[in-house]
Amino acid sequence: MNTRLDWQHIFEQCRVNIQKAIDPCLKTRGEAQPNLGIGAGGDFMKPADLASETAIVETLKDQGVSFTLISEESGIREYGVSAKDCYLTVDPIDGTTNLTRRLPFYCTSIAVSSTPYLADVYAGMVADLVHDQTYSAFIGEGAFCNNEPIHTSKAQMLHEACVGLDLNAYKTDLTLDCRKIIQNIKHTRHFGANALEICYVAGGITDAFIDLRGKIRTTDVAAGFLIAKEAGATITDQTNQPINVPLDPKQTLNFVASANIKLHRQILSLIGNDV
Amino acid sequence: MNTRLDWQHIFEQCRVNIQKAIDPCLKTRGEAQPNLGIGAGGDFMKPADLASETAIVETLKDQGVSFTLISEESGIREYGVSAKDCYLTVDPIDGTTNLTRRLPFYCTSIAVSSTPYLADVYAGMVADLVHDQTYSAFIGEGAFCNNEPIHTSKAQMLHEACVGLDLNAYKTDLTLDCRKIIQNIKHTRHFGANALEICYVAGGITDAFIDLRGKIRTTDVAAGFLIAKEAGATITDQTNQPINVPLDPKQTLNFVASANIKLHRQILSLIGNDV
Repeated sequence: MNTRLDWQHIFEQCRVNIQKAIDPCLKTRGEAQPNLGIGAGGDFMKPADLASETAIVETLKDQGVSFTLISEESGIREYGVSAKDCYLTVDPIDGTTNLTRRLPFYCTSIAVSSTPYLADVYAGMVADLVHDQTYSAFIGEGAFCNNEPIHTSKAQMLHEACVGLDLNAYKTDLTLDCRKIIQNIKHTRHFGANALEICYVAGGITDAFIDLRGKIRTTDVAAGFLIAKEAGATITDQTNQPINVPLDPKQTLNFVASANIKLHRQILSLIGNDV
Repeated sequence: MNTRLDWQHIFEQCRVNIQKAIDPCLKTRGEAQPNLGIGAGGDFMKPADLASETAIVETLKDQGVSFTLISEESGIREYGVSAKDCYLTVDPIDGTTNLTRRLPFYCTSIAVSSTPYLADVYAGMVADLVHDQTYSAFIGEGAFCNNEPIHTSKAQMLHEACVGLDLNAYKTDLTLDCRKIIQNIKHTRHFGANALEICYVAGGITDAFIDLRGKIRTTDVAAGFLIAKEAGATITDQTNQPINVPLDPKQTLNFVASANIKLHRQILSLIGNDV
């Protein structure tokens, strides 16, 4: 269970089963979707989050995979006889707020790793559950959207770039750095599902994505980082250091994901780092 | 040609014809979509912009309507024998950057007025060209999405709200005010097509939309403002004054559109206005 084809098959099964599982949740408005307690990542759980997580777990069990689940919802749980051979870092629904508000932008993120560390992720899927676009990557074999190879953009100048910037619940003084970014890029966007927005960088749809809030979790980024890197992106923290953290629902990080090194340098220099 | 049913029919014909007209543009990537000069609103025109504008003009002519077109692309042009009886303020594609980058978020905005002033808009349509959602309003008769009545949200607290905030190419010191907004709301979003994002406030999908850049044009907001107001929104400038400006492709404005007066007061107080 460690080849690209094996995982592509499992990812596709997961996507189909998630879509079926969340369908009833899409027919009700936000008020009709109760909070089901606090998930392991610290956010309220909604019915769609749990339906998606159950669909993922059942799909993996059906395929006979032993794994340790690291989920934004249920936390860490072991399944099967050799659960420590395979770690599945999952955000069942990234963009739950969008889903419950009928904003057409949410996805599922699944990363597979040999140890519970970000640097050991070797396969990943981010499935856009609205627009029928599934991003995937297997280490050393490139990144794909609906199984077609994808590459980051060749954008060279930040002042002509389209950059995702997460300012959600941003309460720190770092906003002053973000002001420089805002003032020096052509287009800012924030759709509210960071896993998918990282894949937009992978697919050359946007040119970078920046999240310096100290709030984003490994469950949101583990798959997206592999997909973006395999597509040619440069990803570091705000001081240009590689990011390797434990895969844990409570672990947070900062990052800049850029289409190429030239854009990356321009972004880091705006936030006070000459690289 | 001034009843709700007349205009709903024309709007629907426009939407169908626009969708057909832009279809070829959706099959090519950004690099294959050349700039066709500068439009009347000051942005580069793309093939999709002109295809959509032509579809709108031809649809109106086919229906025997005389009108003055006020377009972000072609500027001001008169069609038919009594062109001053009816003004059509149009952004053929709002979100052209998204369309050319394959970001699934762009729309068409059409507002109808008896004079070339924003306050005299009496019918409007904003058609989401990706998700098959058409917002419309006719003055005094309410607002609709796919012909079903819509209403703004009942959200009362800004710190629990989801608020659209346009920071695109935001180069002024007003960002300091925006920092307060960012720090005091729960969710920020920016999808890059303001006409549609104003309709999200109308539909109760988001709770407010804020654009204080001094850059947004009447062609982007004329339809959305009517739709949001008919759905219950409060819309003023940043000093709580009603907005009435000439409908002109070069005219710009600032605005805050809130689901209700209570949220509106909280937003204006954050940017230095007690109301």
